[in-house]
Amino acid sequence: MSILRYGVAYYDEYMPYERLDEDIAMMKEAGINTVRIAESTWSTHEPQNGVFDFTSVDRVLDAMHAEGISVIVGTPTYAVPAWLVKEHPDVLAVTPKGPGKYGARQIMDITNPAYLFHAERIIRKLISRVCKHPAVVGYQTDNETKHYDTAGDNVQLLFVKYMREKFETLEEINRRFGLDYWSNRINSWEDFPSVVGTINGSLGAEFARFQRGLVTDFLAWQVALVNEYKQPGQFVTQNFDFEWRGHSFGVQPSVDHFGAAEAFDIAGVDIYHPSQHELTGTEIAFGGDMARSLKRSNYLVLETQAQAFPHWTPYPGQLRLQAFSHLASGANMVAYWHWHSIHNSIETYWKGLLSHDFKPNPVYNEAVTIGRDFARLSGSLYGLRKKNKVAVMISNEALTALEWFKLPDGRNYNDVVRWLYDGLYRMNIECDFIQPGYAELTEYSLIIVPALYAVSDEALERLNEYVRQGGHAVYTFKSGFADETVKVRTTIQPGIISEACGIGYSLFVTPHEVRLKSGNADVSAEDISVETWMELITPTTAEVLLRYDHPHWGEYAAVTRNRYGQGSATYIGCMTGREMADSILKAAVQEAGLWGADQELAFPLIVKTGINPQNQTVRYYLNYSDTPQSLVYPHGPAEELLSGREIAAGMELELAPWGAAILLEQLGIQGDC
Amino acid sequence: MSILRYGVAYYDEYMPYERLDEDIAMMKEAGINTVRIAESTWSTHEPQNGVFDFTSVDRVLDAMHAEGISVIVGTPTYAVPAWLVKEHPDVLAVTPKGPGKYGARQIMDITNPAYLFHAERIIRKLISRVCKHPAVVGYQTDNETKHYDTAGDNVQLLFVKYMREKFETLEEINRRFGLDYWSNRINSWEDFPSVVGTINGSLGAEFARFQRGLVTDFLAWQVALVNEYKQPGQFVTQNFDFEWRGHSFGVQPSVDHFGAAEAFDIAGVDIYHPSQHELTGTEIAFGGDMARSLKRSNYLVLETQAQAFPHWTPYPGQLRLQAFSHLASGANMVAYWHWHSIHNSIETYWKGLLSHDFKPNPVYNEAVTIGRDFARLSGSLYGLRKKNKVAVMISNEALTALEWFKLPDGRNYNDVVRWLYDGLYRMNIECDFIQPGYAELTEYSLIIVPALYAVSDEALERLNEYVRQGGHAVYTFKSGFADETVKVRTTIQPGIISEACGIGYSLFVTPHEVRLKSGNADVSAEDISVETWMELITPTTAEVLLRYDHPHWGEYAAVTRNRYGQGSATYIGCMTGREMADSILKAAVQEAGLWGADQELAFPLIVKTGINPQNQTVRYYLNYSDTPQSLVYPHGPAEELLSGREIAAGMELELAPWGAAILLEQLGIQGDC
Amino acid sequence: MSILRYGVAYYDEYMPYERLDEDIAMMKEAGINTVRIAESTWSTHEPQNGVFDFTSVDRVLDAMHAEGISVIVGTPTYAVPAWLVKEHPDVLAVTPKGPGKYGARQIMDITNPAYLFHAERIIRKLISRVCKHPAVVGYQTDNETKHYDTAGDNVQLLFVKYMREKFETLEEINRRFGLDYWSNRINSWEDFPSVVGTINGSLGAEFARFQRGLVTDFLAWQVALVNEYKQPGQFVTQNFDFEWRGHSFGVQPSVDHFGAAEAFDIAGVDIYHPSQHELTGTEIAFGGDMARSLKRSNYLVLETQAQAFPHWTPYPGQLRLQAFSHLASGANMVAYWHWHSIHNSIETYWKGLLSHDFKPNPVYNEAVTIGRDFARLSGSLYGLRKKNKVAVMISNEALTALEWFKLPDGRNYNDVVRWLYDGLYRMNIECDFIQPGYAELTEYSLIIVPALYAVSDEALERLNEYVRQGGHAVYTFKSGFADETVKVRTTIQPGIISEACGIGYSLFVTPHEVRLKSGNADVSAEDISVETWMELITPTTAEVLLRYDHPHWGEYAAVTRNRYGQGSATYIGCMTGREMADSILKAAVQEAGLWGADQELAFPLIVKTGINPQNQTVRYYLNYSDTPQSLVYPHGPAEELLSGREIAAGMELELAPWGAAILLEQLGIQGDC
Repeated sequence: MSILRYGVAYYDEYMPYERLDEDIAMMKEAGINTVRIAESTWSTHEPQNGVFDFTSVDRVLDAMHAEGISVIVGTPTYAVPAWLVKEHPDVLAVTPKGPGKYGARQIMDITNPAYLFHAERIIRKLISRVCKHPAVVGYQTDNETKHYDTAGDNVQLLFVKYMREKFETLEEINRRFGLDYWSNRINSWEDFPSVVGTINGSLGAEFARFQRGLVTDFLAWQVALVNEYKQPGQFVTQNFDFEWRGHSFGVQPSVDHFGAAEAFDIAGVDIYHPSQHELTGTEIAFGGDMARSLKRSNYLVLETQAQAFPHWTPYPGQLRLQAFSHLASGANMVAYWHWHSIHNSIETYWKGLLSHDFKPNPVYNEAVTIGRDFARLSGSLYGLRKKNKVAVMISNEALTALEWFKLPDGRNYNDVVRWLYDGLYRMNIECDFIQPGYAELTEYSLIIVPALYAVSDEALERLNEYVRQGGHAVYTFKSGFADETVKVRTTIQPGIISEACGIGYSLFVTPHEVRLKSGNADVSAEDISVETWMELITPTTAEVLLRYDHPHWGEYAAVTRNRYGQGSATYIGCMTGREMADSILKAAVQEAGLWGADQELAFPLIVKTGINPQNQTVRYYLNYSDTPQSLVYPHGPAEELLSGREIAAGMELELAPWGAAILLEQLGIQGDC
Repeated sequence: MSILRYGVAYYDEYMPYERLDEDIAMMKEAGINTVRIAESTWSTHEPQNGVFDFTSVDRVLDAMHAEGISVIVGTPTYAVPAWLVKEHPDVLAVTPKGPGKYGARQIMDITNPAYLFHAERIIRKLISRVCKHPAVVGYQTDNETKHYDTAGDNVQLLFVKYMREKFETLEEINRRFGLDYWSNRINSWEDFPSVVGTINGSLGAEFARFQRGLVTDFLAWQVALVNEYKQPGQFVTQNFDFEWRGHSFGVQPSVDHFGAAEAFDIAGVDIYHPSQHELTGTEIAFGGDMARSLKRSNYLVLETQAQAFPHWTPYPGQLRLQAFSHLASGANMVAYWHWHSIHNSIETYWKGLLSHDFKPNPVYNEAVTIGRDFARLSGSLYGLRKKNKVAVMISNEALTALEWFKLPDGRNYNDVVRWLYDGLYRMNIECDFIQPGYAELTEYSLIIVPALYAVSDEALERLNEYVRQGGHAVYTFKSGFADETVKVRTTIQPGIISEACGIGYSLFVTPHEVRLKSGNADVSAEDISVETWMELITPTTAEVLLRYDHPHWGEYAAVTRNRYGQGSATYIGCMTGREMADSILKAAVQEAGLWGADQELAFPLIVKTGINPQNQTVRYYLNYSDTPQSLVYPHGPAEELLSGREIAAGMELELAPWGAAILLEQLGIQGDC
Repeated sequence: MSILRYGVAYYDEYMPYERLDEDIAMMKEAGINTVRIAESTWSTHEPQNGVFDFTSVDRVLDAMHAEGISVIVGTPTYAVPAWLVKEHPDVLAVTPKGPGKYGARQIMDITNPAYLFHAERIIRKLISRVCKHPAVVGYQTDNETKHYDTAGDNVQLLFVKYMREKFETLEEINRRFGLDYWSNRINSWEDFPSVVGTINGSLGAEFARFQRGLVTDFLAWQVALVNEYKQPGQFVTQNFDFEWRGHSFGVQPSVDHFGAAEAFDIAGVDIYHPSQHELTGTEIAFGGDMARSLKRSNYLVLETQAQAFPHWTPYPGQLRLQAFSHLASGANMVAYWHWHSIHNSIETYWKGLLSHDFKPNPVYNEAVTIGRDFARLSGSLYGLRKKNKVAVMISNEALTALEWFKLPDGRNYNDVVRWLYDGLYRMNIECDFIQPGYAELTEYSLIIVPALYAVSDEALERLNEYVRQGGHAVYTFKSGFADETVKVRTTIQPGIISEACGIGYSLFVTPHEVRLKSGNADVSAEDISVETWMELITPTTAEVLLRYDHPHWGEYAAVTRNRYGQGSATYIGCMTGREMADSILKAAVQEAGLWGADQELAFPLIVKTGINPQNQTVRYYLNYSDTPQSLVYPHGPAEELLSGREIAAGMELELAPWGAAILLEQLGIQGDC
């Protein structure tokens, strides 16, 4: 069914008293048309080894179906039952911190055969039972799957075999990983040590890559099991999540999202973000752009916040703004974690749509209005497609490598990613995420490459070629420094991309009382600070956009731009303040010919655009502030869907605090998107 | 002997050279009439398994007796000898951090049979030997006993049996503890996991309650052993201590003081507090009120500081002020830890009355004056009784639950307790501590209930009834939220007390740029900040004392007062600054009809009052500041005992910096206490 | 060969491609005449148990010899190969944190027989092979050797035997270590517990002394092995290092440098220091004075920084200034760690003279000028001798004891040492380091004694006698407090030195709003703050230089000076600001008759002086600042060696930013050094 889904996670098993009918009545009132169940409650469904009890699943499916609510069924494998751990304590992952302790979820060794045997059995039992139930619309395998740092002896053994498979000889490994250093050389396969204590970042990064592979394999294995039962029209998804800083922040370190997503029919994500006075919508855009990029298609927001934490309880209007922001990024579903606040255990203060008292409350009441709009506007808003001209190139390998070779001030890879991504967001440049291996670079006019520290020669040569052929690239410091085994390149830096960037450097320092001095009218800002890291750049063919203002480093360039072939490459050799980064980005966007009317608007006024399956242009105008905002509408005649008002070019559009407008452009008079 | 005791802990065993006679001579000079011995030196008294050597005990008892100094003998069980650990390494507690390491005291598993066997033998050997010695006035069992986080396999086994005994079925446990969550459900007793890794706060809190029970049982077992030998006139006490923040701070998390105190004849405590410019007397009052409340009688200060740490060495006058402050709270003994500073090991810089050189010093010299006053005034000051009209209701269960469900800014239960307790102290309102199970609430006109987060329905209904019948209650945020298994109530909050408080709420947030706005002339302050936590309160029948000043939360009440039956209930929905809390408390005290002349005085001028066994009113006026203070004496004619001066109503009383005055009112003209 | 050596550590084994000839050509260009090899690459030289491959050693020796570069060969024992750990996991040290993990260097149990067997074999194989090679000029045994906190059962057993050997009876141990405290008494040798968990600082400090003894023994054992092969003219050295705070900071806690140095022919050190705007030269002086003091002779700087970290990359001129500063302290060799930046593993960002691209760069280019000057001036600058009149008395025992009994604000022993050492450095007072056992105190006019907390009676009596006979001593707080088993003295403090200092104290406090008040015109400063610690001193015969300004502690002295016999003793009872410390030091230097022309200069203008083997006075003038400095030259006619200019007394000498001048005084007209 090609409809917008408005959903919640629902746990009949957690209810303090019989609530099912009343809950469903309240869901109907709120327009909830999809619930997700069962992913957390293995011990309820299999109370003892081989004893199964799907009472709560059955009754929820039946009751939901009776009221026309669809159900996504999760495989309950991310939280193991007590009996399994008692029988087979080795299902718990041994990590660098030692053996695991029972209690939390996500503590298993996902390679352990006892775990895999029992996981397979509960998956087959559950999915075979529900697959033909008319309420079931799809499946989620496991939940927020990761490798949980599993690193015990069995995993080390697998890693040695992986290394032999990949590199063939120890000689090759010793050479590429530089193991002669500090007597780490391995001269016989039997001597291969556990890498838990390694001080060799190349080896550590390879182990992290291997661990991410375990996640890809584990999820593909689950999907294959579920696919044996999946009925036509049903989908299989996974709930991907992000680097967590108390909220969704950046690229997930423990999972190769692109690789893992291949097995699935549709990508799903959870997106949690700051709220109240800190609500900016950035994480909604970031998470959405990532989810949409995984399969280059629409996606499901399987979890996002309703009330959540005391510091997130939304101001009036924010829940609506958030819901439409998800749609504006290409989501086909917005689901809350979770329906009701729970009365025991660790997430008691991670509140749902309902408070602990199950009564209507201001947040629920606002959800009621969202549900109505979703139902009413589903035909126009479902299936929004994007054709972005800007991509951000991200890499798990670069992320991991920068964990081993940290920036001096504690900033990490995702800080660099977000430093530039957030700038694009603020200037209303929508973008896709791509990996270094992506083949069709020419789809994009501009590629942003933050801190691509560890990457193969091939990927860099492809980027040089992309620029030569007319593409525009923006690199930051640290890009191109090391190869895919995190061996530093032995040529002048930034290695292969020196050519397209027209620069070279061999020294880099930590900034201390260094400022930036403009070398070009295109780039300037009030904040001229240099932070974190600075490379002492000597241009060969590049023009200098910014140079360092410092008694000893003043001869070096900080930011350069090089015309190369038909395109240009900007190189940012240091961390700057946010305003200066925006200025550099703006120059690059202009250079790429992408600066337009929407860019003249800026945060807190956010614009997102796409085309619906009826080929209509849909424009979301989102006010991420506590004050009213207005703009002069610059595009063709449209209907503002929330108010039903007709809008013509040149008319003033007003947005309430935390308000949204959705403009559906009339067919045939399509805009410039 | 009904006399004031002035004491020290004395360790003949630690002496670097023969000192006994000289020490006793210096003690006599200082008026020391009681020493505590033996609680730390098991390895000296039982140098090898079954070999006993009580030489130092015998000679100290004889020498003290010869000079008329009484002795409290401690059972030496809180520090185990090396030979015991070598023979039975499992006497060391296994904690969540792993197996124990020998070295410190208080590292045993208090359920371990090898420990218990040897503890019983040394107790019987020691106490049987000394019980008839004329110097012995009483016993202390163990010292600052706690459960030391013992949580090994044997303790887990005991806990499972405790759970079955208490809840009978797993079904009941699964339901009340919400174990379906994250697949924690337990379906067979054999599967019951160690709770060391639990993420279920209800289970964690129950385990903490069970561990506190181990302490109660262990102490009762020791008391029963000692009681077999105890002679008429001798007492058994325990040295209770408090939440430690570098000094005694609040309710002890690891011990149910009320439960544990039942076995004892008299309560004892140690009270350590900030000194020098940070000396306020608050901890002396807090610890004293707690100790006095345990058995609703006088108590012993078994340990307090003489010189102690470099940042505590008292200013001239402070040692005297402290000593009289203890008496003013109802202590019958003030004893220092310890007589002499020790020359080796971890407490070398926790100095005693004597420095390492054993010579008279300014602190010792001040003690000499205290000893003389104690001896001289014992007849008037011994046995002070209190009839307080205000109680503070405290709860180990609420404390533990708030460790599991923490306030967002790191403040804990005791911060909330002290926030209000300290306000009472500053306005010279003396109080008792009671637990939620206390039956005789009507003894009090005003009950302060800080953050009573986890508590049974019965206790809350009793509080409602108390208010209905004319009592006055002050609740803070978080009160009544969860039941006694830390399951959040499913009704509108604050649950059962919503009725007496006339309010309800279902949302709560973390304050950000929120201020308070007065809703009633009774309550105001310059500092209108909101901190830590705020509940969005809707009054039903309550009047609003304060509301939130905030663009989005401004419609909600922050502090309310409700007349209910014959009484009133104040509800404080957020953390405020200290000044605002004082204003709210003052309004409640006035509402309860308890505002009098002493309340017109205020910190740093502290007043404490009681009645001695001769039915005379004794009033302590204490100056907790570095500047002189004066007041107009408002009560009946009295003698100032320290100076011998006669004081009449209306006369000005002057107090030197860190000075004290003790007014003994003439019989038959008793004041309003 | 009596020449200045300019060197690098060189790792042919780490090279990403064949570089040897090109590296040697670049070394020759830079004047590198010595390389150190082999100390880190055991696993390359012994790829399997008993299989040896010295290819890289052989080829480097031959190639270096062909170009006249000397080689120091290291024994490769500080980093164990993987095969050894796989065969004998117990070669890894068990520490208080638990069993070791393979990966890093310096993780072995240096008492383990499997380790010692294999270490001996590789040493004999390597050294026997190279000893007659004409390139080999000397050997380094192991590298930065320490005890790596080895504390497993076998080490505990050795410690018990050490204790019995040293103290003979448990009675003696129980008494001197105060083990009755907290039931720690040991009554049978079999009961002796592991000291890993001890809370007895005396025991902990004795174990640390024992561990330092393990290092001394281990190094002497290696030296004895190497000496079996050493040829005439070759030397054996060790690379000592210092307390590490991100750079070389102070006395090394884990090694008795003086004891360990005895086995060696010449002392070697590594010295790493802040750079760029933080370059002061203090660590170069400190490390050099220590190294020179170990054998009271010249020394080798086996490692110092070239580019090193991003925050250390030197400003133009700094590398030269550093090199000459090492010579000025008495170094005969300055060697960089390391030649080339490495491309993998943990020290990738600890850069060498060459960047990862192996190309000439600004730092290398500056080294080229240094190499030329070293070669040109070797005849004048080699073998500088010192006759310092000031000594700083340092002690591993005091350092360890102050780790157990910490200062309240986190400052440690080395903070006190550096507080005074740095003052001497700033006033151009050069000094030696001595230990408390040093016999010839009268060689010095002034002895500085920082925080000599734990020390024998004999050493203190020797110091009293030194003063009586005309010596001058400056003590700080905490000196003399405890004996050599860290038992606090039972007399009035500061114990034995009370006599020479003419003071006593029994109270000490943490300063809070305390200032200093001058008691004598000799000592004053703008900054009158008191920090960290203050002793409440009562003078007996001493004059008061400073007293405390405080309402309660104002009667006590803070800093005193006592004429005693023919000399004087200054006692500093509290931590002061740096300026006040300098004033106190200046008064002491003047009292000792050591204030001269060089002291009128001051940091950033640093002067260091010595006499070369031709008996010529050599004076280094060093400008540690970013601005030019000048001085009027006060000594006899000399040649400025870097410029070749003749300088006469009274002429103005100019120093560029980070510049240096070296003045060689004409023979027979020697100055006042």
